[in-house]
Amino acid sequence: MINAREIIRKKRDRETLTPAEIAGFIDAYVSGDIADYQVSAWLMAIYLNGMTLDETIALTRAMRDSGQSLNLASIRTRKIDKHSTGGVGDKTSMIIAPIAAACGVTVPMITGRALGHTGGTLDKLESIPGFDPRPSPDAVHRNLKIAGAVIMGQTEDLAPADRRIYALRDVTSTIESIPLITASILSKKLAEDIDGLVLDVKTGSGAFMPTVADASALARSIVSVCRKIKTGIVAIITDMDQPLGRTIGNALEIRECIEFLNGKAPEDLETVSLTLAAYMIYLGEAARTLDSAYKMAYEAVSKGSALERFRKMIRLQGGDERVLEDTHLLAHADNVQEFRARSDGFVTRCDAKLLGLASNALGAGRNRLEDTVDPAVGLHLHKKLGDRVRRGDVLCEIHWNQTNRFHDALPLVEKAFGVNAKPGNRRPLIHAVLQG
Amino acid sequence: MINAREIIRKKRDRETLTPAEIAGFIDAYVSGDIADYQVSAWLMAIYLNGMTLDETIALTRAMRDSGQSLNLASIRTRKIDKHSTGGVGDKTSMIIAPIAAACGVTVPMITGRALGHTGGTLDKLESIPGFDPRPSPDAVHRNLKIAGAVIMGQTEDLAPADRRIYALRDVTSTIESIPLITASILSKKLAEDIDGLVLDVKTGSGAFMPTVADASALARSIVSVCRKIKTGIVAIITDMDQPLGRTIGNALEIRECIEFLNGKAPEDLETVSLTLAAYMIYLGEAARTLDSAYKMAYEAVSKGSALERFRKMIRLQGGDERVLEDTHLLAHADNVQEFRARSDGFVTRCDAKLLGLASNALGAGRNRLEDTVDPAVGLHLHKKLGDRVRRGDVLCEIHWNQTNRFHDALPLVEKAFGVNAKPGNRRPLIHAVLQG
Repeated sequence: MINAREIIRKKRDRETLTPAEIAGFIDAYVSGDIADYQVSAWLMAIYLNGMTLDETIALTRAMRDSGQSLNLASIRTRKIDKHSTGGVGDKTSMIIAPIAAACGVTVPMITGRALGHTGGTLDKLESIPGFDPRPSPDAVHRNLKIAGAVIMGQTEDLAPADRRIYALRDVTSTIESIPLITASILSKKLAEDIDGLVLDVKTGSGAFMPTVADASALARSIVSVCRKIKTGIVAIITDMDQPLGRTIGNALEIRECIEFLNGKAPEDLETVSLTLAAYMIYLGEAARTLDSAYKMAYEAVSKGSALERFRKMIRLQGGDERVLEDTHLLAHADNVQEFRARSDGFVTRCDAKLLGLASNALGAGRNRLEDTVDPAVGLHLHKKLGDRVRRGDVLCEIHWNQTNRFHDALPLVEKAFGVNAKPGNRRPLIHAVLQG
Repeated sequence: MINAREIIRKKRDRETLTPAEIAGFIDAYVSGDIADYQVSAWLMAIYLNGMTLDETIALTRAMRDSGQSLNLASIRTRKIDKHSTGGVGDKTSMIIAPIAAACGVTVPMITGRALGHTGGTLDKLESIPGFDPRPSPDAVHRNLKIAGAVIMGQTEDLAPADRRIYALRDVTSTIESIPLITASILSKKLAEDIDGLVLDVKTGSGAFMPTVADASALARSIVSVCRKIKTGIVAIITDMDQPLGRTIGNALEIRECIEFLNGKAPEDLETVSLTLAAYMIYLGEAARTLDSAYKMAYEAVSKGSALERFRKMIRLQGGDERVLEDTHLLAHADNVQEFRARSDGFVTRCDAKLLGLASNALGAGRNRLEDTVDPAVGLHLHKKLGDRVRRGDVLCEIHWNQTNRFHDALPLVEKAFGVNAKPGNRRPLIHAVLQG
């Protein structure tokens, strides 16, 4: 029988917990022998006193082992996933999963829903009519063998300890803890039975980790754990001070992905997507060098093989693949309001968080997990940071369905954009790359 | 609506909470709008980050105001209570309540049960046949007017927030926090509608605060709060490295109290009891100086007036007052085993914690609140620290009823006593006095 008090006390007193103590604590929580109020006190002690690398690894493993993992042993190619810490307009998953699959890597991607100002890949995919985010285990195997990529939601069985602990952290102000974030991300990803992970740590106003220092600390933590448990890892710190690409909102982002895979992409989205895809291909041992991996990724788009993988993935998951030829089959908002510049100059503010909140206010996101999303609404950015504008130029289109929601969103859009006579300093798009 | 997450976050980030935030948090907890798991995370943040004096005062008041306080406005004399942080063989409450009452002070004393290695005044009083630890509010008023003292258990209505928070702290390793202990003690005591409090902070192996430094920190915290809220306070740090007096166990301790009030007392018990009583009399403005208060306390015993107050208190609470003349009416254990010295020398160890655990093992105490106690069992110490002994002298009597319990207790008693050729260093009985 595990002594919960003693394990809480040790962490409270900055003593180091053994792997057996951590595993026992998590097991007892999942089996109901330790109460939520004991776990939340322990989480606060971890928040304030931290965890060693070995403790973080033990927590990651205990959470991974709290449920059923995928078993992809029958698939011979390397299995690589990508995880993003969450951003605004970040639709890279739907672009790079088909690219990596087209280049010979298997991508078993488990992803999530929109929450707060950030979007969710599952919600975006569900704007494709018929798309099923919960394929059966047999279907996952079949689809991975045929399409090379599956994007699906987290099941009840996968790392249930993470789901319960995350819910507790959310209501006890213990979210922003490097070891807890590390274990949360990796426990789910390792349960996918992957050989390697490309981690996209966002930084900037729209990111979970606003400063580069925080983002680097999380990246270092995850790279350290993966190195020690011998899982391939590359962590890339990318900018999220302004949204990625030109669209925010579910169907709007799917449309942008389709355009991307047809060879038409905004520069920032292309740079980040091809970089992430290249590292997946490289980690997946489908290319010998990163340069050749990048070239393979580029060609998978220019030659159309990625689009074909995307088509197969959509078809196998029950979606209407005709959207690839006719994006009018995706949901459309009833109203489009243009938001225009009031002066000449340069765009010096295009705030990711405020635009994410605006999109959420329009109905594209969620404030609580049980909220439903409107696939049609969102923002289409015509101008981004550094762009020269004239008074009256459209800065962005607001795609909306409900008047009250439009009125909630408009002031956020107004606040998000800034136009000044002088261009501001530009931030790098890729701040750093850490390899395992 | 109170924002629980934000209040937890502020304490997590070492920001200072306002009295309104603290009161709102406690109110919301008691009314069910904040969950146990949020409170326990907050308590851990308080444990690790502390509280300012003003925060501690706000918490004390919020917990006091979470239920029904006594209303003793109809009683004209000053109302003074004593609180002990808990010890072994500490039977002073039953001695000093009658002494202070005999000297013209009103004593509305709410007290608790045995737990762990420490005894509980209520359990001891219940070894008097018929004694009712839960007089009605009317009876409390009547008894205070007639006997001048009531000793009773905590009701459901009195500071319910404290009861719930204490239960949470117990299972989340957040007990040993100065601001939380301060608020817990004072919220209950202030709900008694008292004018002043004498606090007995125990220190030593058998105390909750083993070191003098910890005990002093708690004493300073409580004195600071009382000073600021203008409640009379004296905190006395007394030694609990060995048990107080000669007996441990419920009926055994009542017997020792009766002997005390009949003028027959071990020196340490007399010194601590008369000192505590004198401060109660002094705080109660029944004496102009501490010296005269001490003399009054002494005479209340020597002239028998304290014994008469004890008699009235027992009678009014339904107890059999004949125990005062015939202690054989108290429960007796079936067996008494003498534990003897194995060598000549001096007693250099008479460990309060181990002897408390031994008494608990015999059945005098509780490991969980729902355990029942055996009133008859316990220990009678014949020798204490510094006493010269010869091989074969009785060190203590073990009063026992169940064989398996005796076998559990014996090794603890053996470990508790040490006899050496040279006498050890003596600790002071009273380490410090802090006045408000």
